[in-house]
Amino acid sequence: MRRAVCPGSFDPVTNGHVDVIRRAAALYDELVVAVLVNPGKAGLFDVDERMALLREAVVDLPNVVVDSFSGLLVDYCTANDLPVVVKGLRAVGDFEYELQMAQMNRELAGVETLFVPTAPQVGHLSSSLVKQIARFGGDVSSLVPKAVNDRLVARAGEASA
Amino acid sequence: MRRAVCPGSFDPVTNGHVDVIRRAAALYDELVVAVLVNPGKAGLFDVDERMALLREAVVDLPNVVVDSFSGLLVDYCTANDLPVVVKGLRAVGDFEYELQMAQMNRELAGVETLFVPTAPQVGHLSSSLVKQIARFGGDVSSLVPKAVNDRLVARAGEASA
Amino acid sequence: MRRAVCPGSFDPVTNGHVDVIRRAAALYDELVVAVLVNPGKAGLFDVDERMALLREAVVDLPNVVVDSFSGLLVDYCTANDLPVVVKGLRAVGDFEYELQMAQMNRELAGVETLFVPTAPQVGHLSSSLVKQIARFGGDVSSLVPKAVNDRLVARAGEASA
Amino acid sequence: MRRAVCPGSFDPVTNGHVDVIRRAAALYDELVVAVLVNPGKAGLFDVDERMALLREAVVDLPNVVVDSFSGLLVDYCTANDLPVVVKGLRAVGDFEYELQMAQMNRELAGVETLFVPTAPQVGHLSSSLVKQIARFGGDVSSLVPKAVNDRLVARAGEASA
Amino acid sequence: MRRAVCPGSFDPVTNGHVDVIRRAAALYDELVVAVLVNPGKAGLFDVDERMALLREAVVDLPNVVVDSFSGLLVDYCTANDLPVVVKGLRAVGDFEYELQMAQMNRELAGVETLFVPTAPQVGHLSSSLVKQIARFGGDVSSLVPKAVNDRLVARAGEASA
Amino acid sequence: MRRAVCPGSFDPVTNGHVDVIRRAAALYDELVVAVLVNPGKAGLFDVDERMALLREAVVDLPNVVVDSFSGLLVDYCTANDLPVVVKGLRAVGDFEYELQMAQMNRELAGVETLFVPTAPQVGHLSSSLVKQIARFGGDVSSLVPKAVNDRLVARAGEASA
Repeated sequence: MRRAVCPGSFDPVTNGHVDVIRRAAALYDELVVAVLVNPGKAGLFDVDERMALLREAVVDLPNVVVDSFSGLLVDYCTANDLPVVVKGLRAVGDFEYELQMAQMNRELAGVETLFVPTAPQVGHLSSSLVKQIARFGGDVSSLVPKAVNDRLVARAGEASA
Repeated sequence: MRRAVCPGSFDPVTNGHVDVIRRAAALYDELVVAVLVNPGKAGLFDVDERMALLREAVVDLPNVVVDSFSGLLVDYCTANDLPVVVKGLRAVGDFEYELQMAQMNRELAGVETLFVPTAPQVGHLSSSLVKQIARFGGDVSSLVPKAVNDRLVARAGEASA
Repeated sequence: MRRAVCPGSFDPVTNGHVDVIRRAAALYDELVVAVLVNPGKAGLFDVDERMALLREAVVDLPNVVVDSFSGLLVDYCTANDLPVVVKGLRAVGDFEYELQMAQMNRELAGVETLFVPTAPQVGHLSSSLVKQIARFGGDVSSLVPKAVNDRLVARAGEASA
Repeated sequence: MRRAVCPGSFDPVTNGHVDVIRRAAALYDELVVAVLVNPGKAGLFDVDERMALLREAVVDLPNVVVDSFSGLLVDYCTANDLPVVVKGLRAVGDFEYELQMAQMNRELAGVETLFVPTAPQVGHLSSSLVKQIARFGGDVSSLVPKAVNDRLVARAGEASA
Repeated sequence: MRRAVCPGSFDPVTNGHVDVIRRAAALYDELVVAVLVNPGKAGLFDVDERMALLREAVVDLPNVVVDSFSGLLVDYCTANDLPVVVKGLRAVGDFEYELQMAQMNRELAGVETLFVPTAPQVGHLSSSLVKQIARFGGDVSSLVPKAVNDRLVARAGEASA
Repeated sequence: MRRAVCPGSFDPVTNGHVDVIRRAAALYDELVVAVLVNPGKAGLFDVDERMALLREAVVDLPNVVVDSFSGLLVDYCTANDLPVVVKGLRAVGDFEYELQMAQMNRELAGVETLFVPTAPQVGHLSSSLVKQIARFGGDVSSLVPKAVNDRLVARAGEASA
């Protein structure tokens, strides 16, 4: 059985992430989507919310498992017998940092990283852009899954109540 | 009448900014230079000072208006009927982030972004480099308009008084 | 009246070109689309065909004029009183060469170049990719205007007849 | 069974290619290494030689098959039921062209492309550099598989005989 | 006598830094390795520790002097009669920022910057990656000089004691 | 004595080349400017003319020697005891190819390459741009040394006589 992991912060999951997950899921028997727990950095959503929103976004993909991890990605991969990391690549700017990490992860633990180019329609999306727009009341319904948009709208209502 | 907006932090305006503003002003009937108000981040100069220094720097350009805005650029553009954003591009590293923002702004509100390449003589200037040099007493008189240099020198005098 | 020129080889025009032309046409009173005549390099289509295909592709845009030129772009701009060149930018790789050309053209003749980012849906298109696919009988109907596709299919028929 | 294809000119195969093939072979049940036949361009080695040198270089990898193709890669993939292309990525400069091709191939035929970062030790290798060095009698024994080096040395002997 | 300076944070020195220092030392009569003191930013190691670890790492290079500086690099160069800065370049992403700094330093004080490409085997190393791995108990013994690794292991022992 | 070589095609030498040569000459006791002889590619100027134009352009620099070479740069360096190659870097696009060559040259023959950033005022110059402009009768007097401009003007006169 071929398994791979798709790691990230997913704070929150965007249509760009969903595109990468959907395509990676078609290429492996099981795909683990793993949310990085970063204790030093409060996100917009906590890790449980991020996982719940991810699960809703990929509910139609039976071979996708949503999980979380802290510490080094390579340790998580080794502990869970995941030999391959799949990451979306949007742009050249992402590439060099990701290349560095990939070479390091391979050297440290023999974990391979495969990059899948994002679809051009979602290549300009990022969680931080989505959060920035939503903070000022902008409409992000075309950029994120419906559940994420609903949750952002509900939050904005709470904040202004 | 063709109008455009040139947004930025301008903390402080450099000769690189002035070059872009001057060139954009020649291409439009009216050019609005709009200072982004970022409540979460204290600048070296407050927004009123930045606007005053900008006005001095472009005092010979009758079709340039200096303004400020907070929130999303696209909301400011829509509210003020500004269909075009003009931005200077110094280097490849700027390009990808700006491309992302431009595609997002077009998708969200139909606002177009046009990029004008900076003159090579000022391509290496940035506000943060200027501030870093000035903080250590370096001479930035060749990098910024005269009014900005005077203000930086006066500040240094106050700090050491 | 604000006028600009959009130069290129257009051998043949793609949906990416049309996107840039359409957006630039909305920003100027008149937009000249100028086909570069390169005597040293035989194209797939000759210059008259390229111009005819361009005219069909932008038939709904009354302020677009299709023309051709040989020699230096700056000489064409000066002779036709066109102070602004508008170019689409697809990717970082295009950027540096275009930046070089833009700085040179400004230095030689005071001609400004403005870059408009291509829509992400067509950012991966180029005339040479289209020609490569068409040469092997691939379907390019989603990549080029209908008239171009018809012409490519007709040509393929002639070639195999 | 998970299958993938690793396409290229391989004129000749370098240690960089072998690194990518070796790693990709570990991630799939079968890996097809496919030499592109380009009728318009005479290589240093003909296609049969390239395939023979490839077979020697991966003789220890039982799940690697060496083949050749002409025309479009997507047509070869569709005809041979190969849903995934694996390519090595050495550097940012490769990235944009490859990203364009990958997006096109996905749009045209649903073929996915996965990029594997080359090992840093071989990231600076390319067939054209190897050929350039060998042409002037330089020693490339550390850059290519032994069989390729032997063949290059033999050729140099023939040429000067 | 030809002298040069190799500046950096060196928090801590990695095998990548050592490679650059070693190569630069072979090209100059004296090479000063200068640790930047940044009062506003607490490092993992204080400046004295960084200098001690650097001295151990280059103990076999008699023409290397380890020093520290605060403020602007150009002021340090001018005060110490060092006309040349040597920096390692790992990747394109480093390049643009470094190019900007180099052009600024030349304009401000006539100081030249020469870039030496890092060896491919260590091009993916950075102090921040090393720190990130060490924080989670990962093994960095292949990435840093022995003294640095010993110190990191000792620190981890203290932290968990 | 510290010696270095500055290799190139110099067809013809531009103000950008002169800037790099001038700066490199200040950093070494002797600088060899070496014109690459490429038998397979006819230039605009033959190698003797290129060398003569280079000598005129650097006539005030007593420690610069103009030479030519064919074959591999590393062989020329080894034969002439030149341990360092100095190259100008204009832009990111140049960087990756040059980095590849530098790593290869170091691996093959222990020859180091140092990169000096071009001055921003001449960063957009290249021999091919100069030739393209001159071919159409454009004025390149601000882009090349006076002797080169005179020679280009004389040639244009011969061509139209």
